[in-house]
Amino acid sequence: MKPRTVKPFEIISQEGLARATLLHTPHGTVETPAFMPVGTYGAVKTLSPEDLKAVGTQVVLGNTYHLYLRPGLEVLEKLGGLHPLMHWDGPILTDSGGFQVFSLARLKTVTDDGVLFQSHLNGDTILLTPELSAHIQQVIGSDIAMVLDECVALPNSLGTLKQSVERSVVWARKFLEFPRKEGQLIFGIIQGGTNFDLRKQSLEQTSALPIDGIAIGGLSVGEPTSAMLETLEFLAPQMPNEFPHYLMGVGTPRDLMEAVRLGVDLFDCVLPTRCARNGGLLTDLGLLNIRNSVHRLDAEPLDRQCDCECCRHYSRAYLRHLFQTKEILGLRLATLHNLQYTHRFMQQMRQAIKCGMFSKFYHEHKEQLAIAYPNREPGEMVCS
Amino acid sequence: MKPRTVKPFEIISQEGLARATLLHTPHGTVETPAFMPVGTYGAVKTLSPEDLKAVGTQVVLGNTYHLYLRPGLEVLEKLGGLHPLMHWDGPILTDSGGFQVFSLARLKTVTDDGVLFQSHLNGDTILLTPELSAHIQQVIGSDIAMVLDECVALPNSLGTLKQSVERSVVWARKFLEFPRKEGQLIFGIIQGGTNFDLRKQSLEQTSALPIDGIAIGGLSVGEPTSAMLETLEFLAPQMPNEFPHYLMGVGTPRDLMEAVRLGVDLFDCVLPTRCARNGGLLTDLGLLNIRNSVHRLDAEPLDRQCDCECCRHYSRAYLRHLFQTKEILGLRLATLHNLQYTHRFMQQMRQAIKCGMFSKFYHEHKEQLAIAYPNREPGEMVCS
Repeated sequence: MKPRTVKPFEIISQEGLARATLLHTPHGTVETPAFMPVGTYGAVKTLSPEDLKAVGTQVVLGNTYHLYLRPGLEVLEKLGGLHPLMHWDGPILTDSGGFQVFSLARLKTVTDDGVLFQSHLNGDTILLTPELSAHIQQVIGSDIAMVLDECVALPNSLGTLKQSVERSVVWARKFLEFPRKEGQLIFGIIQGGTNFDLRKQSLEQTSALPIDGIAIGGLSVGEPTSAMLETLEFLAPQMPNEFPHYLMGVGTPRDLMEAVRLGVDLFDCVLPTRCARNGGLLTDLGLLNIRNSVHRLDAEPLDRQCDCECCRHYSRAYLRHLFQTKEILGLRLATLHNLQYTHRFMQQMRQAIKCGMFSKFYHEHKEQLAIAYPNREPGEMVCS
Repeated sequence: MKPRTVKPFEIISQEGLARATLLHTPHGTVETPAFMPVGTYGAVKTLSPEDLKAVGTQVVLGNTYHLYLRPGLEVLEKLGGLHPLMHWDGPILTDSGGFQVFSLARLKTVTDDGVLFQSHLNGDTILLTPELSAHIQQVIGSDIAMVLDECVALPNSLGTLKQSVERSVVWARKFLEFPRKEGQLIFGIIQGGTNFDLRKQSLEQTSALPIDGIAIGGLSVGEPTSAMLETLEFLAPQMPNEFPHYLMGVGTPRDLMEAVRLGVDLFDCVLPTRCARNGGLLTDLGLLNIRNSVHRLDAEPLDRQCDCECCRHYSRAYLRHLFQTKEILGLRLATLHNLQYTHRFMQQMRQAIKCGMFSKFYHEHKEQLAIAYPNREPGEMVCS
């Protein structure tokens, strides 16, 4: 292996726990705090890579479970991995496949070897092991791979949570023993639900592993917002400062800001893109439902302050009309807006941290965002 | 009314019957032969106006029937017409609404006053008169309006065809008596199915009207390709040379070339866009079905000769994968390709006419295109 000439992770500026960092990957550097749109099957739904660059996307998340099923390893290998396949030359992070197995697949049997399940597409029986997850992510050629973890929905029993913590560290060790792909970063994942003891145990075991970054899994999976924030308040300050911190499956502008305050650098969530396709548009005042008849005759853009393609060129009346008539252009314009909104928000927080103004930014936005994006109730999923 | 300073229609070059022309409209000049993509509800499905310009679209067709139902006249009036609503600053042609009433609506009663029907969306009873069609097209603000005609499917009885010819001319007169919108061009429509006598009668009556262009309606509506071409061979050479000639609902590269040879200047068809959304991609060798498993591992672009976004950036393997996984990006890339392919083909014919090389072009392509786009059988619809 060549010696590393650049450290893969640099903290540029820090204010309290909040950090502005540079995360170097084989396909370029990510300026954090950063949001990663979800490109399940090797495409962020409705958008091309050029669209992603236009809205400010730096790094795309690919789903290992989905890509393993379709197009499958043979196609990925033949085409040279996901970067050339999807024509995206920036960084890619892949999840481990675990979360999708637990949420989508049928007839699961979980052991220390891995998880045996039936594909949700055709019923094929598949054994996803830590080693297979590592192999798939290497064939995909992601810049950042995630260890295989066992993610359980909330609420759940203490026994189940404890088992998921223990099994996740067993799997993580096996994953990390698999021969590495040069340059690929590997992040570990902390589990433990909203139980502080389990979170502490998982954090200690995970951060002792030979990893390049650390992620918080098992949040935003059905628990109320307050429980998520309390767990973050407890856990995030204890995370080793020298690692990149990644909060999986978050989220709303409010959750993003709360987590950045606690030192989280990276996020992914289907919220901006999935809400967009349902006509839910991110604004400072909350999710705006463009299907609402109040917008029928409205010649104003969605958001006067926004410089995305959607807000520069189209009226609310037209956007509503596109949704009423099920025009695909509407889905794309809404997605462009929601991603540009989210990326701009991250960029504003980064700028604030660099200027030592994050605390001010936080207090200026806290109250309004709590009203705009109210607490989720137990069992309520994000933008479901 | 201001005197016209530029003639609305200029023939730049002619070779046999084939012409290269300039059609001047309030929103710019169309270089013909030209193909108009169909933007039913004020959007060419999956594409933005910037996309349309990138693939070479000069003029967009809007559907009067659809736009009258949604967003409706109140929204169109409030937003200042379709151009600002959809953010397209180029020419727009609107059909009369007649074809959609006959193909989509229920419980139709046709009289010399108009057609009484029930909306296919909500069952509302609507009386579409020639005057209402003219009014809607003025509110839409199209550059080119079409007179209301009665279009009947083929095959049909001589009596029905005869009645549609007679009623169409009655409606056209009423339409043309409605006060004009300054600058808006109005085209008449010839009916008569594949009956030569009726076509001749309709042509004579229509071309005597105070119109700015003349269209052939009632073809590509279920008749076999041979019958369509025979009717065109009979009819097109008799059309007054000084009018723009528009063949409605056509079509395939082969049909486009045959009609250009006979002096047709303008075309519209859902074929390139609808086929694209079904995975049917236009190539010189015919429609390629990208879902076919033969493309699974194919790293080649769809068409090496094509410089569209789809062919520049993506492999057949990826495009197939997008269709397999129902990714919207696939629909958009396929649409971009099919439109750019069609516009480039029209541009090549225009260039050939201007150089006196159209006859050579025609004979070089005739045989290959007849194989690539074989005859349709009776009742077979284009890309259904």
